[in-house]
Amino acid sequence: MDTTNWERARDWIRAEIAANALAEGDQLPPESDMQREIGVGRHSLRRAVAALAAEGVLSVEQGRGTFVREPARIAYRIGSRTRFRENLQGQGVVPGGETISAEVLPADAEVAGVLGLAEGADVTRVITRGRADGRPILLTCSFHPHDRFPDLERRRLARESVTEIYAAHGVADYVRKETALYARLPRKWEARMLEQPADQPVVVISKIDADADGFPIGYAESIWSAGRVRFSLDHALPKGPTRHV
Amino acid sequence: MDTTNWERARDWIRAEIAANALAEGDQLPPESDMQREIGVGRHSLRRAVAALAAEGVLSVEQGRGTFVREPARIAYRIGSRTRFRENLQGQGVVPGGETISAEVLPADAEVAGVLGLAEGADVTRVITRGRADGRPILLTCSFHPHDRFPDLERRRLARESVTEIYAAHGVADYVRKETALYARLPRKWEARMLEQPADQPVVVISKIDADADGFPIGYAESIWSAGRVRFSLDHALPKGPTRHV
Repeated sequence: MDTTNWERARDWIRAEIAANALAEGDQLPPESDMQREIGVGRHSLRRAVAALAAEGVLSVEQGRGTFVREPARIAYRIGSRTRFRENLQGQGVVPGGETISAEVLPADAEVAGVLGLAEGADVTRVITRGRADGRPILLTCSFHPHDRFPDLERRRLARESVTEIYAAHGVADYVRKETALYARLPRKWEARMLEQPADQPVVVISKIDADADGFPIGYAESIWSAGRVRFSLDHALPKGPTRHV
Repeated sequence: MDTTNWERARDWIRAEIAANALAEGDQLPPESDMQREIGVGRHSLRRAVAALAAEGVLSVEQGRGTFVREPARIAYRIGSRTRFRENLQGQGVVPGGETISAEVLPADAEVAGVLGLAEGADVTRVITRGRADGRPILLTCSFHPHDRFPDLERRRLARESVTEIYAAHGVADYVRKETALYARLPRKWEARMLEQPADQPVVVISKIDADADGFPIGYAESIWSAGRVRFSLDHALPKGPTRHV
């Protein structure tokens, strides 16, 4: 079956969005420009726009124009006591996920440095994938010193939480020593595991857990699918100017 | 002049990185694979790798392999009293920037909603660009109710800080009511203003200032060039599991 004019118009708009020639939040070009560019009539173009609006790709705003819709992002509080499950459940999203791997291996220079270990010392690396309503939303890769938590691999596979394992080894209380955050494009395996396009960004958040003496006991890096989450910083920020000029 | 073999190898690696087929942090494929793919000898390939390492594009790590170097990111503390200037100066980076525009215009539905105004009410919009060592690093777009701060446009153009202007209007103390953060690809004008590739992400941080009664008095959205900054969350996070499975 041949592609009809309105389907060609629809596919053209989709391709522009996929190529980021139209970015999220962008207004569509004037109808006459698109008709000329695609080589279709006004009726076909309007049918294409209506179809994409029905799909949630475009948003037709009365009196303002037609825009590329920003994806619905889950609100995720960081820097709070709220956990992944509660964070998601609080907005009617079903949390889920699975452990991808758990193994003991020698620490590379970076992980050894963060955890205050000698390079090559044994660490337990656990990789998990978190889901929101069944869709992958983040990958977490955590490292813990094997000496201090020798049964962590087994306990994590048995679905015990990090907090429970810390407690079982006498760490009743711990703090986040440092949280850092940046965005970049995903590596190939990250895009694959997150089931997201390789040309859309991820947000990387790294955390260090420290015991009551301030000694680092765990390091974790979470890779979030950027199109699926919006973070809120859950603390009263002190006043201060935003001036930077 | 013809392109020599080593230059072809160098350009091939550069193109793979530009297309994100090799992402930052990725290890280069085995030498033999690259030789076959590019059609050059080992000597040419090694010369290309050495040239790209000298440029800072690749990082040759003894005994581990050759990797695409992650860009040097400026560390920026958020949620702290530190200002843009101090934040940058503290790490030997020279802060700078300029005001792009300042004007009074009617609030759209989103801005009106955030500031508790009627849609169409007058707001002052100020767009500034911040620089680190002369390079653009962020764009900030702020909105303030015109009724409450009628001289804000003039004062901002005269380089007064938002804090100074608040104080001049009896707001001696204010707090950040909400900070949200997400990442996406840039719109075309953002990429242009930030002098960054359109296919590399930006981080968007939005903030609401509120007066002592909790009433919103300002809204600002900052768009950061994601390849140039790494944020640290400047607060002691409460303990809590990272478990999400």
